Amino acid sequence: MNATIERLLGHRSIRKFTDEVVPDETIRTIVACGQAAATSSNVQATTVVQVKRMVTREQLAAFAGGQPYVATAGAFLVWCADLRRAAEACRRTGGDFEPGMTEHFIIATIDVALAAQNAVVAAESLDYGICYIGGLRNNPAGVAELLGLPDQVYPVFGLCIGRPAQDPEVKPRLPIEAVLMQERYDEDGEEARVAEYDETLARYYRDRTGGNKESHWSIEMRALVGKESRPHMRGFLDERGFKMR
Amino acid sequence: MNATIERLLGHRSIRKFTDEVVPDETIRTIVACGQAAATSSNVQATTVVQVKRMVTREQLAAFAGGQPYVATAGAFLVWCADLRRAAEACRRTGGDFEPGMTEHFIIATIDVALAAQNAVVAAESLDYGICYIGGLRNNPAGVAELLGLPDQVYPVFGLCIGRPAQDPEVKPRLPIEAVLMQERYDEDGEEARVAEYDETLARYYRDRTGGNKESHWSIEMRALVGKESRPHMRGFLDERGFKMR
Repeated sequence: MNATIERLLGHRSIRKFTDEVVPDETIRTIVACGQAAATSSNVQATTVVQVKRMVTREQLAAFAGGQPYVATAGAFLVWCADLRRAAEACRRTGGDFEPGMTEHFIIATIDVALAAQNAVVAAESLDYGICYIGGLRNNPAGVAELLGLPDQVYPVFGLCIGRPAQDPEVKPRLPIEAVLMQERYDEDGEEARVAEYDETLARYYRDRTGGNKESHWSIEMRALVGKESRPHMRGFLDERGFKMR
Repeated sequence: MNATIERLLGHRSIRKFTDEVVPDETIRTIVACGQAAATSSNVQATTVVQVKRMVTREQLAAFAGGQPYVATAGAFLVWCADLRRAAEACRRTGGDFEPGMTEHFIIATIDVALAAQNAVVAAESLDYGICYIGGLRNNPAGVAELLGLPDQVYPVFGLCIGRPAQDPEVKPRLPIEAVLMQERYDEDGEEARVAEYDETLARYYRDRTGGNKESHWSIEMRALVGKESRPHMRGFLDERGFKMR
């Protein structure tokens, strides 16, 4: 155990921020830490659009389903998967860009996530709090239009960064035995472990809400994967040049 | 600037390791740090399969295109995107799992990448070196068979962790101006910035190889996105239940 590990284990999303603005120089440092993450074949498929204009922030907050901290956090960054820059470099060196490969989509999406998580670690090391905003994918076409995203670029998620104005507890995770396996995939004992986790999480929700929230992981999963989720994504990606072939 | 940020900025992939084995307890800590990363709707779609058996490690090294450190690093982890666990929880609570959504695929892939990057930061904070192995996607069906991965689970990448037996330089990245934009996507000045970076990277390759490697970023990008990449991925994912609809 060391201070870095302690901080990683202490992560929780922050959804209430002071009005302290994150300085530009700090954002540059945080994004530079993102750039320093591993990147597949050095593609560096990450583009970050920082949004400061309040009217744009409010529009993005609305796209995200009314998450007010998108507008009020000390900084808001839109993390985009970007194959356009690589495609242009390919063309300038006499190549023909091969659009629409599933593998390129995967590479770009992973690249962005690795970079963003490094940025998050950097931000939290500076005592900022963060919240990922997957809700931008509620309306990716709206986000793309608002930010002028060209083809071969898609908004993966947003990221709020700011000085925390709340101090929530760390949310319990699945027991590590459920996710760390040896040699081969192993479902043995999973049902019991999930049941144990359901109880832990139900208690956590009850304690935080004075008994008002009755839920647990399995119920959450029914809500998440038991129905269609953002069915527009496929069509949006198709249109943006990510054909998934 | 602080010690965490300095370490993030100092990242480089390690491809040569001492024969020091990473203790089980350390792997648990590293994976627990992965679990602590943000996860979309708490889905926790990450499963990690640690492989110790040498015959399996060597097979995985071969799948990855002959990367010997897959077999020799102090630990090797296969990071899988896992919707099966959530689907089972959904079914047990009376829901009908909705398979094949593109959005669920994106959620699961991002989840794995965020978790893995946290694990990497934890490992590097303990003076281990790491190398991501995207090459497992050369033969994802082979990996899935070898590790007994069920439907709704796919191997996103491998991760070597171990004590470094080399001390490579940090690889230069694109100038931050090329990747951090304000308010809207902005291609202005990109060509000049990429040209500058091409020179920087060409110098880096020449210096490290005694003049034997003549390449730069744009040439690398022509090789990466100027041709089909792992065209089997789409069919593999289809078969494994990730229909991308």
